[in-house]
Amino acid sequence: MNQSADYRFRVETCFIPGQYPYYMQDMGIVVVIDILRATSAMVTAFEHGVDRIIPVSTIEEARNYIGRPGFIAAAERNGEVVEGFSVGNSPIAFAQMDLKGKTIVMTTTNGTKAINTASAGKRVVIGAFLNLTALTDWLLKQDDNILLLCSGWKDKFNLEDSVFAGAVMERLLQSGKFGMEEDSSISAKYLYMSARDNLMSLLRSAPRRKRLESLNLYEDVKYCLTPDQSTVIPVLNEGSLVRMTS
Amino acid sequence: MNQSADYRFRVETCFIPGQYPYYMQDMGIVVVIDILRATSAMVTAFEHGVDRIIPVSTIEEARNYIGRPGFIAAAERNGEVVEGFSVGNSPIAFAQMDLKGKTIVMTTTNGTKAINTASAGKRVVIGAFLNLTALTDWLLKQDDNILLLCSGWKDKFNLEDSVFAGAVMERLLQSGKFGMEEDSSISAKYLYMSARDNLMSLLRSAPRRKRLESLNLYEDVKYCLTPDQSTVIPVLNEGSLVRMTS
Repeated sequence: MNQSADYRFRVETCFIPGQYPYYMQDMGIVVVIDILRATSAMVTAFEHGVDRIIPVSTIEEARNYIGRPGFIAAAERNGEVVEGFSVGNSPIAFAQMDLKGKTIVMTTTNGTKAINTASAGKRVVIGAFLNLTALTDWLLKQDDNILLLCSGWKDKFNLEDSVFAGAVMERLLQSGKFGMEEDSSISAKYLYMSARDNLMSLLRSAPRRKRLESLNLYEDVKYCLTPDQSTVIPVLNEGSLVRMTS
Repeated sequence: MNQSADYRFRVETCFIPGQYPYYMQDMGIVVVIDILRATSAMVTAFEHGVDRIIPVSTIEEARNYIGRPGFIAAAERNGEVVEGFSVGNSPIAFAQMDLKGKTIVMTTTNGTKAINTASAGKRVVIGAFLNLTALTDWLLKQDDNILLLCSGWKDKFNLEDSVFAGAVMERLLQSGKFGMEEDSSISAKYLYMSARDNLMSLLRSAPRRKRLESLNLYEDVKYCLTPDQSTVIPVLNEGSLVRMTS
């Protein structure tokens, strides 16, 4: 591994999907991040045996799968389960369901949109605190440029996604194999360094998290911020997320 | 002044002009920030006696003023003076010119675009490290919501603008009169706290700054990062920036 300052590949952070066109050039791998809660829910669902997850952008697409054998239709908007659906994007709800051999069709406010943004021509994998170590171990072995794509919140900058990107950045930069050139990447790293010792309290200070808590999502939030509950890396394959087999 | 947690007004940070529509609601005052170098140049020009500055979006608009008595046409793109112009956005260059009673017509890569983005229906003022204390002292006296609008770099997130926004945020939040609700605002504050003791080295680590240095802009950069060289607050008045009279 190259320990000199002359890194061989880049790892960069894009803070919002709307900025993706400015960061995607020369990137072979895109890590999609939606800590609260889509990508955390996806990792959890694979950890609990789901066969595949089809991310869709609209509620209507997901609704087509309600009641279809072998499928679970999941839809979340604004932190709540969409009317007519039995599940949204709660990792804890997925952990309590029988998922073995099933397909989840999922639409969420931010995360599934980010996945579809990045789907063309890239290797797309799913990142969350839940699979942080497994993900970074895998990324370190890749000989390619890596973009960490934060899902944001309704097209705006989002703190927990950016902090997670910083956590991945720090580990990849330490190797010497990867370097960064973007201001957003430097900032993600600094945000992680500021936040890592008090992530929960930092996130609880944000009004959006207060709202999540008012929706009784405290347990979900705490779970989503707990690293390394899983070694699964979901990867996009012809429009479906499947478990990466190494 | 209200010292309780129940702040009376908000101060928020918008990282890039493209995000302005998501942050502008309920904001009465917009502080436009382009540390390297447009807003630093503007403060410097007023400090050196310029009468007014007309920010324009295109090189063609600025070109109309070349050679016209009483006007100085200034145009910068990609860190360099545009061909045919004698000055771009270098604060040090402006400091060496005879500006008394003159009007500068200025177009820059990022900053003048941000000013024009925010010009409708808001009180627009100009912020830079050069006028940090004067600006924050004035903002603290205002009974209105304040948006700190970073100019970014070619529509992308920019480190020094965001760190400066964090510096303003920290001072306004300390008063208790102002509070924040946006993740971008929390992050700007944390970036400032990470960067304040080593701002110059942090910025020199970024490739864009390396490029600025290769253009022999080191002195400009150092000057632009030095707080409180001026007490001038440029304010937008019917399309022109003028010196605020208190």
